[in-house]
Amino acid sequence: MTISILRTDDVWWVAGESGAVKIGSDAATTRELLADRGAIEAAATSGSGSVPLDSLTLVSPVTAPCRVVAQMTNFASHVKDAGMDPASIPLTFFRKASGSITGPFDDIVKPSHVRFLDYEVEIGLVIGRDMPVGTAISEANLADYIAGLVVTNDVSARDVQLPKTQFYESKSYPTFTPVGPMLVLLSADELKRFGDLRLRLRVNGDVRQDMVVAGDMIYPPVQALQALSRFQRLDAGDLVLTGTPVGTALSAPPKPVEIIGSLLPPAVKWKAFFNRQAKNPKYLHDGDHVEATVATDDGAIDLGGQRNSVKYL
Amino acid sequence: MTISILRTDDVWWVAGESGAVKIGSDAATTRELLADRGAIEAAATSGSGSVPLDSLTLVSPVTAPCRVVAQMTNFASHVKDAGMDPASIPLTFFRKASGSITGPFDDIVKPSHVRFLDYEVEIGLVIGRDMPVGTAISEANLADYIAGLVVTNDVSARDVQLPKTQFYESKSYPTFTPVGPMLVLLSADELKRFGDLRLRLRVNGDVRQDMVVAGDMIYPPVQALQALSRFQRLDAGDLVLTGTPVGTALSAPPKPVEIIGSLLPPAVKWKAFFNRQAKNPKYLHDGDHVEATVATDDGAIDLGGQRNSVKYL
Repeated sequence: MTISILRTDDVWWVAGESGAVKIGSDAATTRELLADRGAIEAAATSGSGSVPLDSLTLVSPVTAPCRVVAQMTNFASHVKDAGMDPASIPLTFFRKASGSITGPFDDIVKPSHVRFLDYEVEIGLVIGRDMPVGTAISEANLADYIAGLVVTNDVSARDVQLPKTQFYESKSYPTFTPVGPMLVLLSADELKRFGDLRLRLRVNGDVRQDMVVAGDMIYPPVQALQALSRFQRLDAGDLVLTGTPVGTALSAPPKPVEIIGSLLPPAVKWKAFFNRQAKNPKYLHDGDHVEATVATDDGAIDLGGQRNSVKYL
Repeated sequence: MTISILRTDDVWWVAGESGAVKIGSDAATTRELLADRGAIEAAATSGSGSVPLDSLTLVSPVTAPCRVVAQMTNFASHVKDAGMDPASIPLTFFRKASGSITGPFDDIVKPSHVRFLDYEVEIGLVIGRDMPVGTAISEANLADYIAGLVVTNDVSARDVQLPKTQFYESKSYPTFTPVGPMLVLLSADELKRFGDLRLRLRVNGDVRQDMVVAGDMIYPPVQALQALSRFQRLDAGDLVLTGTPVGTALSAPPKPVEIIGSLLPPAVKWKAFFNRQAKNPKYLHDGDHVEATVATDDGAIDLGGQRNSVKYL
């Protein structure tokens, strides 16, 4: 049975069928909470003292500061949509500022200089054990290093991201990483069902992204953590985003357009590109509601759903 | 008068003409030391108790973990060398893992899978005051936020960097950021001479990089911190690298080659590119000595010199 952890201000909870049970832990961070497994399990097996889930004002179950590392293009559907070959995509990471983490029901705030605001539903891996550079990761010990999973949204300012080429700023503005509603702790057997998870994202009720991991994710978590352990220490409580499937507002330009673009000065190329994007109605508008869910179709693993409103500054 | 801070294991020192004087502070991190300004100044004005500088085994004066943020292509000479227009280069940042920080005289260790190891001498800004997102940075308050400067080397695995496009992994392997020998604290007036600093890097005695900031740096520190404060919180003790001038082993492909390359599948393009790079003798070899210095020509500001040997795994 998975254990679903919720957070309100300074209190941690385990979500159950009859409501949420307070965890008897004074952990200030996700890292500290994960070290207090006894308190989590006591709450999970307690039958009493629950409060209605909808009485809680939830914040992100992953606390900042922490490392937020994200995989670049990691779903074949997303790669093909851009006219590229999934076989040619290297396993690549970038960083997001953890100051971008926000709650599962908080506003996504667009800075005034950003024009094209996009969404990317992703599964977040929450690291459960310190992982120095050189740690040997295998299918056999993967569940020791992944404590659990969360729904995340890798919100992106496309007009910042593409001309700068480095993704860091465009995905790091405050509120650009909604996380939650719950951190779902998984056993090793449950983690083996990672491939059965379906990511789904709706904007104002319209389904934009809807894809199952298996058959579409290029580099699964075991490969991601193996690659990370070559260069980046991770600690318990850190967050790794695993990429998004097809359906974002941005369709990267197909190859012929990219080749013509490479002949142009960058300023001309990007002006033409974003003039076309201005006719694309899928970017997020002021007041839009973004709903993201991740679960297996049989409901055995359910990371819940987040719902964020878009607010233009 | 600048104040030059050194670090050995768990002891901090101020470097003076007659040697190094111990700072009476139990600060465990650069952040904590910078908060103990009284202890620094007491050591700086003390005439007694000095030990010879060459008796000290120095480590990085910037302690990890901290944020390491780096500016992409930020010197016109470097941009022109790649056949591009400095006017078209956006102000862009990426992250390096702070686990890549190493001492000013430690080995730079090349992982076995890396083929093309390159150097980039850069001036590091050490942040002196917490800088939440939205902090207003100006020429008038810049010195409040920049405590001082350090010599850094942004070591880069070019065969990892270019195909992946995101710079994070290629510049984050352990030992890929030599820092020091000293953290030089500057007054506001001294910081105004930033443009007079000359960056110089030698490999086995041959000068590879030699450039003064003024007239070549595209986005100076005031613009860099203004841009960072749009999206990334910084705290005292964090490190911002400000880019490197012309002279790295890698000359980025000139524009016509890039256009032809854009017609090819990525695997073919990169194979051809790195086959050419294999004939380039400037990449770092096992046993090479890399020396980097930063100072004004009149010596009024002198960040000292680091010397690192290259070790192939």
